[in-house]
Amino acid sequence: MRTGRLEAFSDGVIAILITIMVLELKVPLSAPKFGDLEPLLPIFLSYVMSFVYLGIYWNNHHHLFQVVDRVNGRILWANLHLLFWLSLIPFATGWMGENSFAPATVALYGVKLLQIAILRAPGGNRVLADAIGRDFKGKTSLILYSAAVALSFLSRTAACAVYVLVALIWLIPDPRIERALATQVQDDRDKTD
Amino acid sequence: MRTGRLEAFSDGVIAILITIMVLELKVPLSAPKFGDLEPLLPIFLSYVMSFVYLGIYWNNHHHLFQVVDRVNGRILWANLHLLFWLSLIPFATGWMGENSFAPATVALYGVKLLQIAILRAPGGNRVLADAIGRDFKGKTSLILYSAAVALSFLSRTAACAVYVLVALIWLIPDPRIERALATQVQDDRDKTD
Amino acid sequence: MRTGRLEAFSDGVIAILITIMVLELKVPLSAPKFGDLEPLLPIFLSYVMSFVYLGIYWNNHHHLFQVVDRVNGRILWANLHLLFWLSLIPFATGWMGENSFAPATVALYGVKLLQIAILRAPGGNRVLADAIGRDFKGKTSLILYSAAVALSFLSRTAACAVYVLVALIWLIPDPRIERALATQVQDDRDKTD
Amino acid sequence: MRTGRLEAFSDGVIAILITIMVLELKVPLSAPKFGDLEPLLPIFLSYVMSFVYLGIYWNNHHHLFQVVDRVNGRILWANLHLLFWLSLIPFATGWMGENSFAPATVALYGVKLLQIAILRAPGGNRVLADAIGRDFKGKTSLILYSAAVALSFLSRTAACAVYVLVALIWLIPDPRIERALATQVQDDRDKTD
Repeated sequence: MRTGRLEAFSDGVIAILITIMVLELKVPLSAPKFGDLEPLLPIFLSYVMSFVYLGIYWNNHHHLFQVVDRVNGRILWANLHLLFWLSLIPFATGWMGENSFAPATVALYGVKLLQIAILRAPGGNRVLADAIGRDFKGKTSLILYSAAVALSFLSRTAACAVYVLVALIWLIPDPRIERALATQVQDDRDKTD
Repeated sequence: MRTGRLEAFSDGVIAILITIMVLELKVPLSAPKFGDLEPLLPIFLSYVMSFVYLGIYWNNHHHLFQVVDRVNGRILWANLHLLFWLSLIPFATGWMGENSFAPATVALYGVKLLQIAILRAPGGNRVLADAIGRDFKGKTSLILYSAAVALSFLSRTAACAVYVLVALIWLIPDPRIERALATQVQDDRDKTD
Repeated sequence: MRTGRLEAFSDGVIAILITIMVLELKVPLSAPKFGDLEPLLPIFLSYVMSFVYLGIYWNNHHHLFQVVDRVNGRILWANLHLLFWLSLIPFATGWMGENSFAPATVALYGVKLLQIAILRAPGGNRVLADAIGRDFKGKTSLILYSAAVALSFLSRTAACAVYVLVALIWLIPDPRIERALATQVQDDRDKTD
Repeated sequence: MRTGRLEAFSDGVIAILITIMVLELKVPLSAPKFGDLEPLLPIFLSYVMSFVYLGIYWNNHHHLFQVVDRVNGRILWANLHLLFWLSLIPFATGWMGENSFAPATVALYGVKLLQIAILRAPGGNRVLADAIGRDFKGKTSLILYSAAVALSFLSRTAACAVYVLVALIWLIPDPRIERALATQVQDDRDKTD
């Protein structure tokens, strides 16, 4: 089985998730002034954070399936498992935004990210695993998310700062992955020649 | 006609259905504590069950169209017929979740699954039909769903347990399909050589 | 330019339209009995009708782009024009369903179908136009839709019966299209040989 | 990396955005007469304008990726950045429509279009940049949008007229792009021969 349909289905689900979050930004009725938009600020901020995280997950998914050629039942279900937890992000985002980043909501958001970080690698891929070695980014994320969940009840600002920090770590491109991919492409070419 | 667009369209519809169910999990306003999420538990459970079922249907659809090469008008409409009944799953799920698994709602959910089980095979596919033989899984599902609909009015827990059981039966990979596909791939290669 | 992305985008839009209509079928709260679903009947019936119509439009779109090889700016915009009018179907459907098929709502639904029938052919395609000749189905639809709009104010049942009739006309496969396609495929093969 | 998945994901997001705007056109309950639709007119007009704009963005995206062969991390994120701002269009549209084109809402809509105009070119593409030269359309749009934002507080009609004007400028096909693409295709053929 090729990866095409699995990618198309995952793209569809992630595209919908990233878009329905914006529906939480409800249009204020009979509210024609700029000031009327102020109460929407926490919802907007939570939307930005989750948009970036879903963007990171989509990018990682894209990268991962660059090196996966074929799928089997186990990969299909690992992928659906990942999509299930991703599908709860709009809820966690909305709860946090609607309740002005209350401690429990910030903690739940962190638990959400933690779960996804644990599940992130669908289908165990040797090329990538070899490339990333001890997986510095993944392990760091787990530690930082756990810290942020605990921090939520002391300082919501600190917890959110940690979420932003982890996002930044993932936004910086990983030279090891690019190198491994380049090597693999080279190997494939060598075989073809 | 190739199967590409039919698959893409079905993927789109199923991706949307699997995602809009999460909208039923409405964000509680002015409810910043973990305890405020408790009333959402039945809705969450019904969501998990339907997510797994839609995942199974998508996997089966994926498997089926691995062995279908070309589509005609009859297959297009059989597929739309299947998508129509799938599109009612979010409603049946929401009704069951919002009414705390009341007997009638659990029964309707079973009727829904039963209809889809009857319709499941779009376009009659010989390779698969030969492979699965007397279609043990399909027939067992029909019997178990019918039993669960009747059970709903005696014990909702028992009915739901049956739904979980059928889902588990489908989650276990079917060695016969994998073998038939492998044989077919081998045959195709032999022809090409 | 290839037709791939135009088809993918159209598939996405039609898949979403066909699915958001089901959101109009709102889950009744604190309504756990079968009888509680009765008020939803007109909404359900309007949903079935529009699902079939969108299915027909998708099938026709699929057929049409089987014989279109390349797209240009004119075809892109003709297609977006068609998608715009299709995007109003959920509204027309919901208005008709929520107001129990009141005369004006049934008339607007007919106007909707009429507009789409007029616009149906995006990008003027010679192969198809030649095949269908005087376009019996298209012309009949225009006449029947116009009649149904007028009928709406006399008898809503009669108007709806006409909508069902036109849908049935389109559901019957058109041997002329299949023949034209078969001829074209044959021609292409002859050229390749 | 190929552009296929990036295009599919962008198509999905834009298809959803263009479709969820129609949800703002809420079905009036217990309102079965044509006159009951009158209050929806400003919402409908704002929907038409945004549909055309999203159509233009999709067309431009389509054109752009005709000449982009491979994507890297920078292009992926530039594209997500663009999608983020596009995702706010339904909100800006809804706010403007629900508040009958109040000055602040019209200004915000212009700021929205302005931001997107600034971001429009994801991934800096030499072929296109060379072709368009000093980018007359892009620069004109920036000036006109800025003027319209200022105009909003003097005359909403004038501001909206400017938005319509810019849309029209983009709807007229650009012979320079078509020429550059044709040349490139020719070059590619020459290389292949």
